[in-house]
Amino acid sequence: MKKISIALIGIGKIARDQHLPAIAADPRFDLVACASRNAVVDGVRNYPTLEALLEAEPSVEAVSLCAPPIPRFQQARAALAAGKHVMLEKPPGACLSEVRALDEMAYATGKTIFTSWHSRHALGVEAARTWLATQDIRHVHVRWKEDVRRWHPGQAWIWEPGGLGVFDPGINALSIVTQILPREVALVSSTLSIPANKQMPIAADLELTDTTGVKMRVEFDWRHGPEELWEIEVRTADGALLLSQGGNRLQIDERDVALGLVHEYPALYSRWHDLILRGERDVDARPLSLVADAFLLGKREIVEAFEE
Amino acid sequence: MKKISIALIGIGKIARDQHLPAIAADPRFDLVACASRNAVVDGVRNYPTLEALLEAEPSVEAVSLCAPPIPRFQQARAALAAGKHVMLEKPPGACLSEVRALDEMAYATGKTIFTSWHSRHALGVEAARTWLATQDIRHVHVRWKEDVRRWHPGQAWIWEPGGLGVFDPGINALSIVTQILPREVALVSSTLSIPANKQMPIAADLELTDTTGVKMRVEFDWRHGPEELWEIEVRTADGALLLSQGGNRLQIDERDVALGLVHEYPALYSRWHDLILRGERDVDARPLSLVADAFLLGKREIVEAFEE
Repeated sequence: MKKISIALIGIGKIARDQHLPAIAADPRFDLVACASRNAVVDGVRNYPTLEALLEAEPSVEAVSLCAPPIPRFQQARAALAAGKHVMLEKPPGACLSEVRALDEMAYATGKTIFTSWHSRHALGVEAARTWLATQDIRHVHVRWKEDVRRWHPGQAWIWEPGGLGVFDPGINALSIVTQILPREVALVSSTLSIPANKQMPIAADLELTDTTGVKMRVEFDWRHGPEELWEIEVRTADGALLLSQGGNRLQIDERDVALGLVHEYPALYSRWHDLILRGERDVDARPLSLVADAFLLGKREIVEAFEE
Repeated sequence: MKKISIALIGIGKIARDQHLPAIAADPRFDLVACASRNAVVDGVRNYPTLEALLEAEPSVEAVSLCAPPIPRFQQARAALAAGKHVMLEKPPGACLSEVRALDEMAYATGKTIFTSWHSRHALGVEAARTWLATQDIRHVHVRWKEDVRRWHPGQAWIWEPGGLGVFDPGINALSIVTQILPREVALVSSTLSIPANKQMPIAADLELTDTTGVKMRVEFDWRHGPEELWEIEVRTADGALLLSQGGNRLQIDERDVALGLVHEYPALYSRWHDLILRGERDVDARPLSLVADAFLLGKREIVEAFEE
């Protein structure tokens, strides 16, 4: 089988921790080049910008973008304009209209765009979705709490508009919720806790519902430590589901359920490969849309300044 | 031809100024009932709530909802659950996820949901869209400015989360922009001016672009008077388009262009009627999505307190 020739753009923490190992482990991809302002990846050709890479490497077929959201939009436009398939790290854009514009470009060029949501491929998510499909759901409680100093050291962009603040991890929970629940969820209310010296929230408390009126509570907090808490609890008429460890552990009525085998980023690249072969696009902005809703409806409360 | 039996919910300024005359002038609709907490409409049966109306009037086929966005979601759910066709005044929800949830319900029941945008039916909009479809667009400038005291007297809800602030009129401009431009637009930056005693902005300054990099500036201001300014200017390689008076006057290169004949609300009801007969849904949340984006990316500046 012919390998798909790809380039990876934005060599930061997520690229080194997740993308590079996932690509290296997948025999269907051939990583030929990287672009990064500062970093260099061994064993491939390196360029300072995506534009330089596109100019020098016309045979690259697909570009995986994992820079922060604000610079990523321009990169995605350039990659699509050059006729490449594109995979976007989460969130797929700094805002929703960017995602629509990119999808329109991909549609026009016939290339595959994939808005990846890694948490949807956590080991327990598919089993949770299957179980919940037939359940009478009564209540949902999302607790997604971590220490920002541990998980986002030195990432100043995360506190600026476009960086999402506590929704940067929180959007992972929303990507799971929109995947495992059988009906669309709608935001009812939102309270945002904004540090006095920042633009973006350090914590958020959301109330959601669905078309049948199920009550859902979502708590995001970056002031939590030392152990992170990434869990979703669903009570149904017949039992209780607990998805913890970011979706990688699933318990139903306190018993562990057998899990999937393929980890998050390998599963993402596998999915992208399938989409490219089929000539399909996969664009789902619903998790980002819920975040935008949380800002639109958000009551803002100013809290203690945050110093890293 | 059999008339469609309808009910109108939320009898405020927009219902009396626009909906009631438009329905009365359309022989294909039969207004049989209204619901409002306080108001009564002559010549039809009146109920204090939509729920009471649905209970008493099972033969009503379609429900037009023009209460403010926050109570409207629950009303739309109730109407769809009762198997009615639904038309939503703009904005179609307090947030985007509400619109998705309602669309899912309408899909499941096979009923017509219509997210109406009255400004898209202003007299010059369709001609503007047709002309721009083949133009090389260079710059877009939206100026949408009015006196909030004149246009929203006593509407306290408009300053609360869900009420949109200056985006309540501004979303009309965005509904036109997303209709007349040939490509999707994406938000680049947003500055929101928030009165010190309010939650929602009294002015907003947006920068947008499209997939080809056209620069677009959008100015919304509620501190403008005495005459309102509702205009969109598009410069192209060949000329200049000016859509003014909220879309009801169209000039190309300073010459007036012949306009449509049917005014905004009559055109909305005509469109809803067509959708119902065809068994189709028309759900477009893009104008609201741009507003949510403006909050998501918005830099907030506190300005002088507003007292009505």
